[in-house]
Amino acid sequence: MVADPECVFCKIVAGQIPSFKLYEDNETLAFLDINPVHDGHSLVISKSHYPDVFAIEPEAFAAVARSTVKVARAVNSAMAPDGLNLVQANGPGAAQSVPHFHIHILPRRHGDQLLVNWKLKPADMARLGEIAERIRAKL
Amino acid sequence: MVADPECVFCKIVAGQIPSFKLYEDNETLAFLDINPVHDGHSLVISKSHYPDVFAIEPEAFAAVARSTVKVARAVNSAMAPDGLNLVQANGPGAAQSVPHFHIHILPRRHGDQLLVNWKLKPADMARLGEIAERIRAKL
Repeated sequence: MVADPECVFCKIVAGQIPSFKLYEDNETLAFLDINPVHDGHSLVISKSHYPDVFAIEPEAFAAVARSTVKVARAVNSAMAPDGLNLVQANGPGAAQSVPHFHIHILPRRHGDQLLVNWKLKPADMARLGEIAERIRAKL
Repeated sequence: MVADPECVFCKIVAGQIPSFKLYEDNETLAFLDINPVHDGHSLVISKSHYPDVFAIEPEAFAAVARSTVKVARAVNSAMAPDGLNLVQANGPGAAQSVPHFHIHILPRRHGDQLLVNWKLKPADMARLGEIAERIRAKL
């Protein structure tokens, strides 16, 4: 397991910083966000330190995904929100706070305006085709 | 594989509706969102029809997670955004548009104000402890 001694989430994994733990298995840990936007706002992390989705091992994200299903169901059942988002951030332009891969389980309330629900604006099809080619070239 | 004959994403999986396909394997499909908020805005879906994160098989989300790592890296490499979010929505309170589990790969640009970056507001620790217990009771 990779750990960064300066990382706050690695310290939570190591038990050096306390957390309101919800779920744990060999590869993942889930705990309450201590700056919640709504009751039940939780985080699911890989125990190994990966800064973001670009660096994470696919199997590590797969493990986080399995735990996220379990914890999201429990949050939904315990808190009965009007909706629920999973949100994950990479890089300063996406306001990533802690550089250790984590998924927010974010209960929503009607009218909370927490996430801007973007307007659906159909794209130019020729441009989409060109962009798809550029991305496929990197796969 | 479960399919809903009324579902637009199931129709894309079946090839009955065209898409700008980026990546495909046995369990998942990735294609461009045709209402992009930025160039490279993509979706990764499970081929099987699951309405949301509460209904999805953990292994199906694990497969989507593996594909998301691949496609997010390619989008980042092709588009060089300032950041990138993964966003997944469940229920009307979270503005879920299509009731078939999907992850948005959302390139970000500085100042796009696309997602509200919530203020960090520390919670009352006693209340957090009580909420953690309520969620753990559902796990």
